[in-house]
This record gives sequence, structure tokens and C-alpha cells, in this order.
Amino acid sequence: MHGEFELITRWLAPDAATLGPQSGVALGAGDDACLLDPGAGQQLVVSVDTSVEGRHFPADAPAWAVGHRALAVSLSDLAAMGARPRWCLMSLALPTADGAWVAEFSRGFHALCRATDVCLTGGDVTTGERAVSVTVMGEIAAGQALRRDGARPGDVLAVTGALGGGAGGLARWQAGERDLERELLARYLLPQPRLVAGQLLVGKATAAIDVSDGLLADLGHVLDASGVGATLDVECLPLVPGLTDALGETAALDAALAGGDDYELLVTLAPESFDEARRALASIDLELTQIGHIHEGQGIQGIPPDARRGWQHFSGGTP
Amino acid sequence: MHGEFELITRWLAPDAATLGPQSGVALGAGDDACLLDPGAGQQLVVSVDTSVEGRHFPADAPAWAVGHRALAVSLSDLAAMGARPRWCLMSLALPTADGAWVAEFSRGFHALCRATDVCLTGGDVTTGERAVSVTVMGEIAAGQALRRDGARPGDVLAVTGALGGGAGGLARWQAGERDLERELLARYLLPQPRLVAGQLLVGKATAAIDVSDGLLADLGHVLDASGVGATLDVECLPLVPGLTDALGETAALDAALAGGDDYELLVTLAPESFDEARRALASIDLELTQIGHIHEGQGIQGIPPDARRGWQHFSGGTP
Repeated sequence: MHGEFELITRWLAPDAATLGPQSGVALGAGDDACLLDPGAGQQLVVSVDTSVEGRHFPADAPAWAVGHRALAVSLSDLAAMGARPRWCLMSLALPTADGAWVAEFSRGFHALCRATDVCLTGGDVTTGERAVSVTVMGEIAAGQALRRDGARPGDVLAVTGALGGGAGGLARWQAGERDLERELLARYLLPQPRLVAGQLLVGKATAAIDVSDGLLADLGHVLDASGVGATLDVECLPLVPGLTDALGETAALDAALAGGDDYELLVTLAPESFDEARRALASIDLELTQIGHIHEGQGIQGIPPDARRGWQHFSGGTP
Repeated sequence: MHGEFELITRWLAPDAATLGPQSGVALGAGDDACLLDPGAGQQLVVSVDTSVEGRHFPADAPAWAVGHRALAVSLSDLAAMGARPRWCLMSLALPTADGAWVAEFSRGFHALCRATDVCLTGGDVTTGERAVSVTVMGEIAAGQALRRDGARPGDVLAVTGALGGGAGGLARWQAGERDLERELLARYLLPQPRLVAGQLLVGKATAAIDVSDGLLADLGHVLDASGVGATLDVECLPLVPGLTDALGETAALDAALAGGDDYELLVTLAPESFDEARRALASIDLELTQIGHIHEGQGIQGIPPDARRGWQHFSGGTP
């Protein structure tokens, strides 16, 4: 058993590898608050996401995967704004001070910090149901952020990568599969926030959102914010390889439309920008697939008649 | 029952009263992340604190007090740095979507936002054990923040306001008292972050910390960070009025030394700055009391032999 301060000092302190002179960290963890130097002419981009055991990740998930995932889902929000991630704070609740679990958790969290050049600059640890809340802070040149409200009639509707991995991986986990090197499980427990893609889409996309609640729900947010409608071309949806084999055709389509937790970027672009954006993402080996188009009106056309509409806390079952 | 999006839209959206042109909020809640405009030449001061039901606040505390307290304890960290608070994000976990509770909670939270000129710019809501995690962001001129590591031999050790209210109020609550207009209960459930005091102490105090873990524990953090020792003058400790009557002399002293949750500022100052600081705080009707002095060496002298040493999660009982 460890005390709070020892846990924080040993496992949750800033990682020296991310604390260089370019980090903008004037004072890291260890005081009442951290001190950060924002870049001149930059807007701050800030978001928070909480992951609760048994709801957002399985109780028996490897601790390092929980650490990765908790940070990844927060970073995905910065990706959807086109921001460069810079700093994060973590609030960790644990039923007991299980040092071995925290050490593994920390390993996954810090590995993603290093991979995405994010510095952990503070946080707290408390007793409670196991949960992780991660606040991420990024930067972007003022006025350049990708928002939800910029979709225009005539825009192409497109998505990065492939859909259905979140729900497909969860189904495989629930079926007893545990090998995180399998693609579906990796997409569910080890999502890769599309940070570089988001930054490459700045100046090209008219609107962006990450697919966390499910494609239909997240598209709905963009349409509502932009005051437009969309037609989906369901046959064009890029499904994660192996999804249909694992779930069957109906459930695979449901996973892609309403499963959520895919952490791909759903974007709208003027037709003349689409090819340019597709080439830019090809440079990082990421597909950008047209899945429909934006038009005047409201709502989504082209949805199969019996499709679910996505995920909301309190209104559905546990995932 | 309400859905997640409806709860966020109705109760947890930014308050228009805090969203003026001076707020620095380029884009508030409703997108993947918020967009903030930091001030030129300012450092960001960021902290997060989580409050869990049954551990940091009683399950039967009024929801509006829970909202006030969750924000107040985070703001107290900004006060201890001397920062001007600007923005916050909230992550709220709830076992059920109890709209009436959230409405009351929100009322207390937003009232303190308005009183301290803080704008709520984002957050999330999830199912889980009831808990609130609040990330606060403030600003201070670069290099001016009050840190823990600046105490020097010869400094005066002083504390704002009065001590023991956190533990004293908890004891009254546990004894069945419920009138939040009573001073001890108010200090426990409705702490007032010493934000203006912290800003007035910039340029005067050599080190500062807020009294959250307990005077001895928090003083220990300052001494460790500064590489100095201190002698306490226990007879000078300013106790909250009524504390000794409520708890008895021994428990009252214990509350002041080790109870925690007082959210006063513990500061060190050169002797020639102490009177100036005291006059500055008198202008906002706040006492600044010398309770000891800093010297070479390490550790705390002058502690009564049987005093407890403060609060750590995982190493003590629940408060």
C-alpha cells in the first residue's frame, strides 16, 4: 500500500522525456498548480473526458491499456479541432492504492504522452470507484480551429480510417478474446487519436468532429451546429477489416453507424479541397473516404430504416 | 430522467453572465473542445481537483453546496499561486440523470463562477459514483506566481483568516447540524477561496500554499520544497470563532493543525513585507496572522507532542 503523495511522485509525475525547453512548462507537478507558457498568437484548445471502469473500459482490461485509452479519448477531441496537443492533467480515482496497477497504468499513459509530445503537468489521486479524468490542452493559430458549425451545402462528407472498430472490439472482448494485437481489440482498447490528420486538415475541412458517440449521432451534431442536412452513402462506409466476419453484416453496419468509440475524424470539405485533403492524409498512410454529401435542409437521409441512432449516457444500457 | 446532451445543454453550459467580450472565450461548450484566448505576457496556471461523494462531501449535502465546494477547492489552488482565475471545465459523474439534483448543483457552481469571474467552458457528464472533477485555469504575469519553494530563513510564517473550520464543520455535520448559515458548517461546506488575497500577496510573499491537507502537512510541503525548517508558535494559531466551544480545546487544536479543508493561505514573507501584506489584506477585511518563522534546517519545531500530522488519501480513514 502506498500513500497519495508517493503514488503521485513515483508514477504520475511529469515524464522528463516530455519536459524539454520546448515544452512550455515553467513549473510542472509538485506545487498547487502548474505554470505553462502559451505560444504567442495561439488559441488554447481545451477538453476533458472521464473514463469509468465497467462503463468506458472493462474492469479486467490491462492497466497500461486503460492509461493509453484514457488519454487517447481526450486527445481525440484536440484532433477534431486540428490542434497541436501540448499539456495534460489527470485526475485518478482508485478504490485502493494498488501500486502495481498504477505503475502499469502509468506506463501506458506516459508512452502515449511521449508519442504525441504531450506533457503531464499535474493532477490528483483520490479514493473512489476506479475512474480517470484527463484534461488536455493544445494550441492552434487563432481562428484556424476546425469547428462543428462550418459545414456548407455542396460539401463532401468524409471520414478518416475505418469505422466499427470500437463496437466490434468490445464485442470481441465480451466474447472472451484478449489478444490486443488483434485489430478489432486494438481499435477498441488502444485507439489512436488522429492528431496529425486533424492538423493536416486545418485550412481544408469546413467542419470536423471525432466519432465517439457513433457516426449518426456525431454527424447529427455537425448538422445541427451548421444548420444543414446530409445524405449518407451507406455502401461507401469504410469498415474495419474483419468486422463483418466477426459480427455478421447487420451488426457490422450497426457498429459503424451507431457503435461509437471509433475516434476517427468525420469531416466536411468543399469538393475542390477533398482530393487535396486525401493526398495529405495519404502521406501519413491514412485513408480519407467520401461517405456522403451535405445539402440544405436538416437531418440525415440514406439511413437504413432500422438503424440505431447512437449512444448517450443515461439513455442506453452500459456499453 | 434526462439524456446526457440535455443535462449539459440545460445546466452545464457556460453562463452568459460570465461570457462577455473580456472573457477570452472564443468558443465555449458545444464543440469537441473550447477555444480560449490567453492574455499576452501571461503564464497559464492550471490545476484539477476531484470531489467524491462520501469522501469529500457528505451524500446528504445540499446539491448547491456540492457545486460551490467542488469549484471552490480547485480555485483555492489558483489563489495559492496568486493567479487571476479565468476558465474552468467540469467532469461530472452521476449514478442516475437526476435533473433536480443537477439543477441545484449547477446553481451553486454557477453562482461561484459569477462571484469569481470564472467562465465554465466545457466538461462532460457520465454515469458513475457521484463525483465532480474541476479543472481551473488562471493567469498571472510571467514569473510572478507564488510557489512553494521560495521560503527563506528569517521569513515570517503567516496564515490568512482562521483555521480549524474544515474539521470543525465536518464534526458539526456529523453531529447532525444542518444550518449552513452557522460559521463552522459554512467553512466546511462553503469554503471561500482566497483569490483576491493571493493576488494581493504577489510580490510580497516568498512562498504560498493553501491549507487543504492540514496546516502541518501543507507547511511540510513548503519546507521540503524550499529546503528550510520552521518553528510554529501554536498559541498564535487563529482558530475559527466557536471552534473550541464546539470541539473542546484538544480537538480544536488538532483541527487547526491537522484537520485540513480550511482553504486559507499559508505564506512566508520577509519581515519587512509582513506589515505591508497585513495592511493589504486588511483592505479586504481579511486577517493575516504570524504563526511562526522560517529558519535553516528542516522539519517543524513547536508541535505539541501528540499532534496528528495531516491527511493523505489511502493512509487515513475517510474524513
